[in-house]
Amino acid sequence: MASETAPIDHFWAVIPAGGAGTRLWPLSRSSAPKFLHDLTGGGRTLLQGTLDRLAPLTGDRVVVVTGRPHRDAVRAQLPEVSDGWVLAEPSPRDSMAAIGLAAALLERHDPDAVMGSFAADHVIADPDLFAESVRAAAAVAREDWLVTLGIEPAFPSSAFGYIHLGDPLPGHPGATAVREFVEKPSVRTATEYLATGRYRWNAGMFIVRPTVLLDLLGRWHPEFAAALRAIAADPARLDELWPGLPKIALDHAVAEPAADAGRVVCVPSAFRWEDIGDFDSLAALVGGDAAGAAVLGDASLVRAVDASGLVVPASGRIVAVVGLDDVVVVDTPDALLVTTRARAQDVKQVVAELKEAGRAELT
Amino acid sequence: MASETAPIDHFWAVIPAGGAGTRLWPLSRSSAPKFLHDLTGGGRTLLQGTLDRLAPLTGDRVVVVTGRPHRDAVRAQLPEVSDGWVLAEPSPRDSMAAIGLAAALLERHDPDAVMGSFAADHVIADPDLFAESVRAAAAVAREDWLVTLGIEPAFPSSAFGYIHLGDPLPGHPGATAVREFVEKPSVRTATEYLATGRYRWNAGMFIVRPTVLLDLLGRWHPEFAAALRAIAADPARLDELWPGLPKIALDHAVAEPAADAGRVVCVPSAFRWEDIGDFDSLAALVGGDAAGAAVLGDASLVRAVDASGLVVPASGRIVAVVGLDDVVVVDTPDALLVTTRARAQDVKQVVAELKEAGRAELT
Repeated sequence: MASETAPIDHFWAVIPAGGAGTRLWPLSRSSAPKFLHDLTGGGRTLLQGTLDRLAPLTGDRVVVVTGRPHRDAVRAQLPEVSDGWVLAEPSPRDSMAAIGLAAALLERHDPDAVMGSFAADHVIADPDLFAESVRAAAAVAREDWLVTLGIEPAFPSSAFGYIHLGDPLPGHPGATAVREFVEKPSVRTATEYLATGRYRWNAGMFIVRPTVLLDLLGRWHPEFAAALRAIAADPARLDELWPGLPKIALDHAVAEPAADAGRVVCVPSAFRWEDIGDFDSLAALVGGDAAGAAVLGDASLVRAVDASGLVVPASGRIVAVVGLDDVVVVDTPDALLVTTRARAQDVKQVVAELKEAGRAELT
Repeated sequence: MASETAPIDHFWAVIPAGGAGTRLWPLSRSSAPKFLHDLTGGGRTLLQGTLDRLAPLTGDRVVVVTGRPHRDAVRAQLPEVSDGWVLAEPSPRDSMAAIGLAAALLERHDPDAVMGSFAADHVIADPDLFAESVRAAAAVAREDWLVTLGIEPAFPSSAFGYIHLGDPLPGHPGATAVREFVEKPSVRTATEYLATGRYRWNAGMFIVRPTVLLDLLGRWHPEFAAALRAIAADPARLDELWPGLPKIALDHAVAEPAADAGRVVCVPSAFRWEDIGDFDSLAALVGGDAAGAAVLGDASLVRAVDASGLVVPASGRIVAVVGLDDVVVVDTPDALLVTTRARAQDVKQVVAELKEAGRAELT
């Protein structure tokens, strides 16, 4: 029996590194999306943190799928990942294409592979609990299930989709069938979900054998699966076939119909998970329980008088905040954002306005 | 009879250009106090605006008294003022010493002089009404009164001192005796003052013959008056005598006791006057009645979404403000301030903290 600290046999991590992160502007830019940034103040970027968490499970079996403009930055941040496994998408085609491309390549490269896809911009506080869940999920996936990790909800969030749990899966303590995936609910509905104890946050983490994933895709999108396999058979056809791939999330293309078809299993997980979608969640992450303003960066640059919220002094300048609660101040060399935690979602409006005003270089 | 547009005979403007303006940090710095800045967006600094307002009344009879560190900047901004009349104080000694020094020099230089002292950091919206008041005040001052302009209160401010009006002065329609100067009152008391119609804001504008001012000073501070006259007699003694001068405002040293002695006259004035003491008053000045955020500077740099207050984009960077009312954002190349109009007074705390933290170069 393999040790619980050794890499999982034939287990591959697939890290889709995409998404503009416009709600984290001006920290996150289209030229340097959020996964390339250290948003926790721990000295590693989100992408590096993702690798750090996975490396004990995979050894060097890591595939990163990113946009062409970011391939060099990804390689520079992840020298451990072999060059050939940093895949560059010719254009953004959502998560099914990105993860499906990795699956098609792995299907040919390692017939015994089990892959797990983990976004490059998540934060997980308990790497050991995470590893435990992934090990359990990989064991289930080896039996040809599509497995998802179900995060224990910390509160009735309306920002995440939910996994509705079904019956226990024999032979795998804790694992259950997935009855259905449900879209982001209202807080009221989320509260009802939590009261039942039968719902988990959907973090978009899928563990599956590449062939199973592509075969499931082939049931509902046969041309999509065929195109991915054609690219894997002849990578020179990437630029020819890629633009024709549907722009669709893996959740919609495969996970939801597969759940209806009884092919999805959930491994409920207790690790603390953060999807840093906006400055409100970043403030929660950085601030912890501390009073006053949380600082992401050099706290000696910040003077806060009767202020709480989040300050990011990323330009080297002094930032003074006086008499504002739950404020968000993000100071970068060419752009400054001032808002509140409550309005964090609306930052994307600024990005849209800047693009309209012909200032796309700032976005 | 002189035309109402010609300069007033023998009338000299004395402009004390001092004060750190710490409540306007980081726009105002000890190295570049507020009077050196264009705070109205009109293209002229407060100091230049003060000269523009006075030049039609004085011709080239203008004296500026400033700190030694600012003498070069003052000369650069006011090439019209003759070099010998830009006086440099060896150290800050409050307004009595600054204005008294000018008075002592003028007493010797022009025995028929009437002087008017006008701070370098005020904003006056109606230069014609201002000129009319100064002409009236100069005519009274020539009869050996200490004359002050009494600003019609726009609202019951607790930020200004008040002038309590007495009986009319025969021969000068509108002019009245000053019963007393009263310190900054509570809003409740100020409201009572306004209801009587017998109170005016004290803007610290005094029009007086130099000899009258120094003789009045001599009644309560004989050594002070003697020292000022000794410096005027031998300017080489400035560095020797200056450090011994009391640090006291002209209001306390002369105006208040002179009012008790029945020697002060008020010329009530209808011009709109702004003492830009902090970002709240600056916001009122810049914003006028406009909805949304007022911008001092290049408005194309500001993106405001559901925001009101004041934004000063003085570093050339984009400033985005989302979902904050009455916010104040002041963006300079080496320091950023975020506060609210209501907390504008507390900005000086930041300056004090920076000094304590050994960052005086930023203050």
